[in-house]
Amino acid sequence: MAMEGLWLFSVALSAAGAIGFICIILVLRWVLYFRKGLAWDGGAAEFNWHPVLIVTGFIFLQGIAIIVYRLPWTWQCSKKMMKFIHAALNLVAFIFAVISMVAVFDFHNAANIPNMYSLHSWLGLTAVILYCLQLVLGVGIYLIPATPVSWRAAFMPLHVYSGLLLFTSVIAVALMGITEKLIFALDNPKYKDSPPEAILVNALGVLLVLFGALILWIATRASWKRPKDQILHTLHSNGGGEDNIKVDSASSQLSDGADAEACADVRKRTTKFDD
Amino acid sequence: MAMEGLWLFSVALSAAGAIGFICIILVLRWVLYFRKGLAWDGGAAEFNWHPVLIVTGFIFLQGIAIIVYRLPWTWQCSKKMMKFIHAALNLVAFIFAVISMVAVFDFHNAANIPNMYSLHSWLGLTAVILYCLQLVLGVGIYLIPATPVSWRAAFMPLHVYSGLLLFTSVIAVALMGITEKLIFALDNPKYKDSPPEAILVNALGVLLVLFGALILWIATRASWKRPKDQILHTLHSNGGGEDNIKVDSASSQLSDGADAEACADVRKRTTKFDD
Repeated sequence: MAMEGLWLFSVALSAAGAIGFICIILVLRWVLYFRKGLAWDGGAAEFNWHPVLIVTGFIFLQGIAIIVYRLPWTWQCSKKMMKFIHAALNLVAFIFAVISMVAVFDFHNAANIPNMYSLHSWLGLTAVILYCLQLVLGVGIYLIPATPVSWRAAFMPLHVYSGLLLFTSVIAVALMGITEKLIFALDNPKYKDSPPEAILVNALGVLLVLFGALILWIATRASWKRPKDQILHTLHSNGGGEDNIKVDSASSQLSDGADAEACADVRKRTTKFDD
Repeated sequence: MAMEGLWLFSVALSAAGAIGFICIILVLRWVLYFRKGLAWDGGAAEFNWHPVLIVTGFIFLQGIAIIVYRLPWTWQCSKKMMKFIHAALNLVAFIFAVISMVAVFDFHNAANIPNMYSLHSWLGLTAVILYCLQLVLGVGIYLIPATPVSWRAAFMPLHVYSGLLLFTSVIAVALMGITEKLIFALDNPKYKDSPPEAILVNALGVLLVLFGALILWIATRASWKRPKDQILHTLHSNGGGEDNIKVDSASSQLSDGADAEACADVRKRTTKFDD
């Protein structure tokens, strides 16, 4: 199945991937070169896991999870497999977010800094809790076979809206976190003196916004959506007894060689609706 | 023309209006009660115009500008009139944003604080510049009659995406600004001691996010979009010489009494395409 505007999609996807990758490099550069590196010791090096895990997990992986249905070379894979990949990426992102919060609480407690006083912490904790809720509802509604198809369809607009809103909010909360950390950590030279560390981390913030903007663009283009499994569905609803032959033919047509084994369960799709 | 889900729309719109209104009250309470009030003297009271103008103009008015086409009681008004209202609200929001930036530069310069060193300032200035570009392109493409209809249609997805992204970014930048200001301004008790001012302004930040979330929800529901002027358009494309009679009948059908005068130019719509 060909994608409309494939060239532009490839540019947007490559840019998102490259910028996301640079963000990870920059956050590692920040904590490893300018700060005290990474450790799990209750000190500043434990705190440093917070930005690293947020950028790699809660932003980069969540972004990839959002657009995983858009990748045209996955369109021959079953929708069910893609749902599992989407859920798994979001689950890993959630685990990264939880560990990153534990790192901050440990650091605060060891240094006698109060927890949960800042707007960053209020919105960040809310985002993690709502993300967990989104994950639980998403699995319950889209991965548990017993859930009625009508529920799945009715919940989809809210699932998509909440997902994009949470992703955007997480980036906004990260920008607040960057602001806080640069003000608190930089001293002689201070943040306002624009030392190299401040420039590097400001650039990280700008790139996080660009990454978010690209993911949102890719996710909201109607013409880049995974097509409904029209070919298979049409074949299925056309005939009764000849299903097997037709399905096999459609399946090999879709699989197109290389990925045929990996996506073998495409055959099963014809017997039920995908959402 | 009836709106699908009018009850839910009314709830979302009322909530957005109420929350936006509370945000304006809170930002005024912040600067008038906890800070040094409002003045144009190069000091802290001049800085205070910054949050006040951003919340009232760049966030509240911009939010209203975004959803102005969604208000069902405007659907009988001409699209052209609504475009002017949309542009005017955005223009006022832009002017508020520019004045609010002047206030900060004046304050920084008088107090010998460097300008443009923080991520807040980088992203904020970028947002204002791109907002200006969006305004100029929007007027050029949708309000200047000479622009070809095909250009208008081709640019629309980018216009909508940029508009929503800029609105979201402005809120994110405001949250960073709140974070900065509370850290810099609160001293004995500090931000981390959670004095009443910190709680009030954190609450303002949470409400700004809720306001943004409601505006984005309202703006992205397909069923709440202003209907294409189907009735009039259908009538127009059906016949040739009988246009005037048909148009008048459709017009009075749409105007529905009260707003007939205000929206009299609805009649003109049938002679050209609206975008």
